[in-house]
Amino acid sequence: MNILMFSGEYDKALAALILANSGKEMGIDVTMFFTFWGLCLLRDPGKMSTKDKTAYETMFGWMTPQGPEELPLSKMNMMGLGKKMLLAMMDQVEAPNLSDFLMGARKKGIKLYGCQLSVEIMGFTPEELLPEVEIITATEYLNNAIEADLQLFI
Amino acid sequence: MNILMFSGEYDKALAALILANSGKEMGIDVTMFFTFWGLCLLRDPGKMSTKDKTAYETMFGWMTPQGPEELPLSKMNMMGLGKKMLLAMMDQVEAPNLSDFLMGARKKGIKLYGCQLSVEIMGFTPEELLPEVEIITATEYLNNAIEADLQLFI
Amino acid sequence: MNILMFSGEYDKALAALILANSGKEMGIDVTMFFTFWGLCLLRDPGKMSTKDKTAYETMFGWMTPQGPEELPLSKMNMMGLGKKMLLAMMDQVEAPNLSDFLMGARKKGIKLYGCQLSVEIMGFTPEELLPEVEIITATEYLNNAIEADLQLFI
Repeated sequence: MNILMFSGEYDKALAALILANSGKEMGIDVTMFFTFWGLCLLRDPGKMSTKDKTAYETMFGWMTPQGPEELPLSKMNMMGLGKKMLLAMMDQVEAPNLSDFLMGARKKGIKLYGCQLSVEIMGFTPEELLPEVEIITATEYLNNAIEADLQLFI
Repeated sequence: MNILMFSGEYDKALAALILANSGKEMGIDVTMFFTFWGLCLLRDPGKMSTKDKTAYETMFGWMTPQGPEELPLSKMNMMGLGKKMLLAMMDQVEAPNLSDFLMGARKKGIKLYGCQLSVEIMGFTPEELLPEVEIITATEYLNNAIEADLQLFI
Repeated sequence: MNILMFSGEYDKALAALILANSGKEMGIDVTMFFTFWGLCLLRDPGKMSTKDKTAYETMFGWMTPQGPEELPLSKMNMMGLGKKMLLAMMDQVEAPNLSDFLMGARKKGIKLYGCQLSVEIMGFTPEELLPEVEIITATEYLNNAIEADLQLFI
């Protein structure tokens, strides 16, 4: 199972990670490839760096979400109000939050890949991302995805 | 063929249901799994309930689209103006609307599943959804999707 | 490999075309099917026409992006500011832009299909689209996609 995670939104990332974790628990081999906004999910909030970055890259780094809990909703975000509401509703049914699912994915050994070109364009350094993340090219992603039984672009 | 319907937007739902109906007419086995905003498509507008709901769930129920024709567009919605325009343009070429395609899917026996966790978080009760909808887990979705020849996340 | 291009956004189109070009370079057979907003990517900016169009269709034609470089970003568009920034960042790492990738796809012979129903609804005429584009139905798309080893809805 291969998920291409393009979007940088809380609800879509939640859907992706619930599927990834469920798949892994079922014994399915799960790979996630993070491109563009999806990379924001893999940022380690404690490791922001401005070293060797251009002005654009530094600005971009501050303007974009720094880690899973900062991602906005894809709908009804309303300056964060809709997200507060969704989080409260998740809490009421005792559903884990996005950070929990991401931690679960890391612990279960779900393979997390970052897209090389996206990392270059956005100016993220490998040190700013979670230690489990491996940077690969679109070609390497395709080699992997084409062999999978289930591929999703999220 | 398996469609995971995450989005709650008129145009995306239209694309999903056109594909689902076309597939079924070609003799393909079609399954749709509705999560998050996609569940709004399966709400029966005449069956809103506040029974056993928390304040959040009730509020959320009112703020989100109640059935197919209330879904907004993903682009150019402009407070509904863009959607009016699209509907008029669909009418000019005599294209059926979203409710028609949804009714077609129900009549053709396209399998409609709702995501258990999403239903719980959003506080929808099974009675508020179309009678054809069956609630299943992410695991059950994956068991089904991994066997499909074509899977799409919409 | 089959990509259904629904979205009309610069960043998503970029992701789709990078994958399509990479796939083709690896020797994979690549097909792209453009529906709804995705069709804006295939418009030839020099060939806008109002002939035989209704008022809605003419208005719609002017309001929607005319070709690849006019597509907005899916996130952080901020009236085009975010896009300017992304383009500058792409330039800094010497990444080709969307038009380059689209030209690459055309030169490499990646098959570009337009969705018949979408073309009819949006009122585009075949003459307004790139010459390589062939118009097909959803049924023809499904026949092709179901045989593919990798299908993505973008």
